[in-house]
Order: sequence, then structure tokens, then C-alpha cells
Amino acid sequence: MTDEFKIDPWSSTNIMEEDYKRLIKEFGIEEMSDSLREIFKKNRFIRRKIIFGHRSLDTIYRAIEKGKNWAVMSGIKPSGPFHLGTMTTALEIVEFQKMGGKAYYCIADIESWEDNGIPYEEAEEIAVDNLADILALGLDPSPKKAYIWRQSQEPIVKDACFKVSRLVTNNMLHAIYGEKTFGLYLAALIQVGDILLPQILDGAQPTIVPVGIDQDPHIRLTRDLTRRYYKKFFLPGSTYHYLLTGLDGSEKMSKRNPNSYFTFNEDLKSIEKKIMGTLTGGRRNKKEQKELGGEPQNCMIYKILMYHFEESDEKLNEDFLACIHGELMCGPHKRECVEKVIEFIKKHREKKEKLIDKARELLNII
Amino acid sequence: MTDEFKIDPWSSTNIMEEDYKRLIKEFGIEEMSDSLREIFKKNRFIRRKIIFGHRSLDTIYRAIEKGKNWAVMSGIKPSGPFHLGTMTTALEIVEFQKMGGKAYYCIADIESWEDNGIPYEEAEEIAVDNLADILALGLDPSPKKAYIWRQSQEPIVKDACFKVSRLVTNNMLHAIYGEKTFGLYLAALIQVGDILLPQILDGAQPTIVPVGIDQDPHIRLTRDLTRRYYKKFFLPGSTYHYLLTGLDGSEKMSKRNPNSYFTFNEDLKSIEKKIMGTLTGGRRNKKEQKELGGEPQNCMIYKILMYHFEESDEKLNEDFLACIHGELMCGPHKRECVEKVIEFIKKHREKKEKLIDKARELLNII
Repeated sequence: MTDEFKIDPWSSTNIMEEDYKRLIKEFGIEEMSDSLREIFKKNRFIRRKIIFGHRSLDTIYRAIEKGKNWAVMSGIKPSGPFHLGTMTTALEIVEFQKMGGKAYYCIADIESWEDNGIPYEEAEEIAVDNLADILALGLDPSPKKAYIWRQSQEPIVKDACFKVSRLVTNNMLHAIYGEKTFGLYLAALIQVGDILLPQILDGAQPTIVPVGIDQDPHIRLTRDLTRRYYKKFFLPGSTYHYLLTGLDGSEKMSKRNPNSYFTFNEDLKSIEKKIMGTLTGGRRNKKEQKELGGEPQNCMIYKILMYHFEESDEKLNEDFLACIHGELMCGPHKRECVEKVIEFIKKHREKKEKLIDKARELLNII
Repeated sequence: MTDEFKIDPWSSTNIMEEDYKRLIKEFGIEEMSDSLREIFKKNRFIRRKIIFGHRSLDTIYRAIEKGKNWAVMSGIKPSGPFHLGTMTTALEIVEFQKMGGKAYYCIADIESWEDNGIPYEEAEEIAVDNLADILALGLDPSPKKAYIWRQSQEPIVKDACFKVSRLVTNNMLHAIYGEKTFGLYLAALIQVGDILLPQILDGAQPTIVPVGIDQDPHIRLTRDLTRRYYKKFFLPGSTYHYLLTGLDGSEKMSKRNPNSYFTFNEDLKSIEKKIMGTLTGGRRNKKEQKELGGEPQNCMIYKILMYHFEESDEKLNEDFLACIHGELMCGPHKRECVEKVIEFIKKHREKKEKLIDKARELLNII
């Protein structure tokens, strides 16, 4: 564990390109090999190389091969409406669930208390809204295929937290997370319980946790404590996606900075405005753009289409080529993107409205 | 909070006489006034000045005066059989219960895990044994008069722990407890939940926690967090007794040092041997004893009789005077003490045997 280089799951600082490489090297994250990518190509985020690294993803592959149970686990901190960042994790779960994993989805309301001071009662309505979003995104909530819990209501995660805390030292937490409040350390140990829940509840099985790289400290802590306290369990695995930078040019889409993202509940005009104003990979003027071509790899329009709003790989590829060849201009591309997003959001809201009661029922919130 | 002077609830170092004075002064413990002692004279430990200080004991007095509800709360860490130290706290509860307080008794099995590595299942049998002891000592377990819980099974204390942890910093815990594992800090915050349980469960009411002075850090932490998070609650109060020094001359009776104490489950011959071998306030020989008189204030025989085994204040007083006048010799006094202890233990075991099933039922352990 190096002390110089820390990533902080509770900050809104992004990880730079060179940092990704360093993380892979220093913390033992494995790069996604071509063969694993091929195996998991049904997963859009793996296929499109948005997921760039993993730990123990091969255990999932072996479980699929042998027809054994495996789990995909993630969750959301109920502190605000869904946005493109939370959507990534949610869709990753949906993709893995479609491949046969049982989905374990956690509403991290203890964390929203410790981190944001949101009382559980206040978190309830946000949780219902968030869960309706992920249902609308395609999560199958049937009991055989999914288990959904709120931390505050789930004895399993609290008990696991108390169990694993015994030999944890403050130095260890400091080395992983830096100087934080006791409450945030506690939230981290609750999250260890969340990640172990699939195996505590349904028996030892490979588990994959799709996260942004900023969440890796939780994965490392969990694997470390699993080795010590749950020797019969599989070490929880993980996949890592690149984090979207902010629409406004800020380092990371973050609930802490409303201009960096839009939410699913936002006024459509406001969403349109934010997209139209985002940074593209375009040149200073039309002439240059035609001569030099654009830089889609630095273009937020291209990225949000690739992450979420363009279903067709072929179309994405065509646009990429058209852009670098100077044939695609930013104006029309932005407008096309806006149309797709608005269309998606409208349909999503229709679906979601019908799912609010279901979400309420699943969370046992009346 | 001073950094130079810390008391550690998890160590077996005793508090010296001058330290008691310093604690009272530095941490704002109130000395037991003659008027309060008079009011609570039914309580043997207050009457005999074994309890020397308190916080907010006056709130209990006012509740009694006005016929309002009040609580007495304490507990035991299930890590071994009852001994003279645990007996003190247990009897203090019984005394306060007799005065009209509802007794809240906690089995601190999360602490026995974090501190001693005893898994909950292993703690269960110890807990049954410990609870049968306190029932035999006179605790009335009827639901109107008592509430008994195991930390591991009680959502209230876990939830309170998560609630109050939010703004707790590691510096704060370090200042109170010194450098400890995360698990012990966590146990301390669970204990905050234990102390607040009477008010969370049954509404705001004055609460008294009879403890050894070594437990004061928990009281201070609880009062601090009650001020911040439970503004409508009474600040939990406490009484402080002097700690018994070890039978073998060590600083404190401690489970960590088997020669310093005897347990209620111990072989009677072994108990006899430990008592006969303890330090008294006697002089070097009979002649000196007759001339100078003994020092009962430094005598373990006198102390254990005063704490637990001599029912009559008068007899205690007579012995005290006989000793300092050189009329009571250590040999006969020891033998008398042994007889009383053995008789007590025998009767206690008879009572206890009949209460094991009741204890099991109360703890819901089959």
C-alpha cells in the first residue's frame, strides 16, 4: 500500500489517464484481456472498452462455464436522483444479470447518513425513486434473480461490519482512505458487508462488483477482510470503468456539482442546454474541422452516446470515423445526441412512473 | 480533555487514590454529597461510601420525588464467569431497581468479540451463566421492571451507533481512549447505544449507569453524543465506585489475571485458598498488631466483606474498630470471611441452578 497515491471514493476528483495505469500497476488490478473481452462481449461496457480492468473476473467465467451460481453486486447511495454516473453502474448490473448472474442491489442509506447527513426517513423517498430508475433500466427484480436491500434495514450487513471490524486498525483505514471521520470509516466497513452479502445469504459463490475506479479502495478492503474472516468465500471480484468527466469540463460527474451532469428528473430544457454546452473534440472552426478532423476520444458527446444512448456499435463506429475524417460537425452531432437523450429520458420516465409502486413494495416502504 | 491523563476501560491498570481526586476535578465528576448520600442511603454502595462520585444523580432523585419513570442501566461483557468485580455492578443495579428504577441490563457480546475475539455463539453460554448469576443476586426480570438484551441481537443499539458515529472523528476517540483498534472504537459507540437504549425504547427519562471509574470514558462519550444527537433526552448519569484491588496484591481484579480474583464457578477450595492468601492490613506479628492496631482501610478481607459479604453495617463497624484497636487478629478474621464467602457461594449456586432456564428464556437462547 503506498501512502503517496490514494484514491478517494468520497471526493469529486477524477482519475487522470496516467493514474489509471498507475492504479493497475500498484494495486494489482488486471487489465481486461482480449480473450476475456471476447467472452463477455455481450456486456456493452466490456465490449466498448469502457470497462478497462478487473479483479477475479475469471471466476465468473468459470462459474458460467460450469453452470454454477454467481452474483453481481452493486448499489446506490440515496442522496439524489439518477444521473449518467449512477446509470453506468446500474446498467452494468443489468448487463451481468442478463448473462445469468443474480443481481444484489444495495441502497446505501447508512452511507448517505454518514457522508451526507441524510436521515433514513429522508433517504426512503430518494431510494424509491432510484430503485424505480434501475427497474426502468431493465433490472429484473424477481426473487430468484435479484435481492435488494437497504443497509439500515439489513442485519446481515451490520453483523458482517461488526465481525470484520475486530482486527481493523485505524492505520489501515487511514492508509486506504486517508483521514476521514469515524462515520465514513464505518460506512466503508458496512460496504464490506454489502459486498459479502451474496455469499453470506446464498452461500459461497463468485461475486462481481462493477464499479468506477474511484471505488477500488472498498474492493481492496473487502478482499483483505474476506481473506481473514471468510476463508470459505470467493474473494469478491470487480470490474472497473472509466469515469465520465463532467459535462461542464470539470473532472468528474458529481452530485456535488450540478453543472457537471444532468439528472433523470431534470427539466428537459435544462438537459438540452447542458448537452448543447458541453465540450466536444471539435476544432476551432468548420474549416479546421474539415482539414484536421475531430477528436472523438476527447468528446463528451461521443462519450455519452457510447456509454448510454447509442444502441448500435456500427453507428458509433461510423460516427467515430466520420468525425476523425472531418465529415461530422459538432453542431449536428450535438443535436442528434440531444434528440436521442430526450427521447430516451421521455420513454424512461413513462416506464419509471409505472414502476414506482413496485419499487416501494420491494423496499417495503409504504 | 487532557491528553496526559487517560483512563482506559480495556486495561487492567487500577486507578490510584490521587488519580480519583484528579478524575473528579478534571473530568467534572461530582463528589457524593452528604445530602445525596442520605437520600440514597438504601443503596448499600452509596451508604458504605463505595460509590464516591456521580454525574447527574440528582435527576434520579427528582424523578423519584415526582413519581416519574427512571432507569438504571448496566451490563456485562460475556467473557467469563461472574466475580467480585462484576458482582459490584450487578448488585448496584439490583439496589437501584429496588428503589424503583427500571433495570436495563446489557449482554455486551459485540464488545466481547471486538475486545476478546469471542464469537457470538461462544458468548451465548457465558451470557446465560452470567444472567443466571444476576438473577440469583436478586434482579427482578419481569418485563415492567427490567429489559435485558444482547448487543448482537438488538437493532436499537446498532442503529444508535450508526446514528451517532456521523460526526465522530478519530481524533476524538483517540483523545478519549488512546490508540485502539477500530473494533474497540466501534464497541465504544455500540455502548453509547446501550446507554441510550432506555430512552430510545421507553421515552426520555433520567438514566443512571453504575460503573467503575475506569468506565467513565464511555459515559463522557455518551453524554457528548447525547447532547448532539438526542437533544430531547436526559443526559445519562452515572455513579462511580472504587475498584477492588486484586486479591494477590495486583492493581485491579481482572479477568486477565486469574490470581487477582475468584469466580462464582470456582472450586471452593481454590476460593478459600485465595482468600486465606490475600493481603490484609495486619502488622508483622501479633504483638505489633495488639500495640498499633490493624489498617482495615488497606485490608482486602475488610473490603470484600464491606462490598459484598457482610450484610450488617453494625458488624462491619465493630470489626473496623476492633481491628484498629488491635483486638481483631487477621487469622480469625480471614477464617470468618472464608466462612461467609463459602456460605454465600453455596446458597448462590443453589439459587442460580434453578434460574438457568429462566436466563436462557430471557435471552432467547435455546
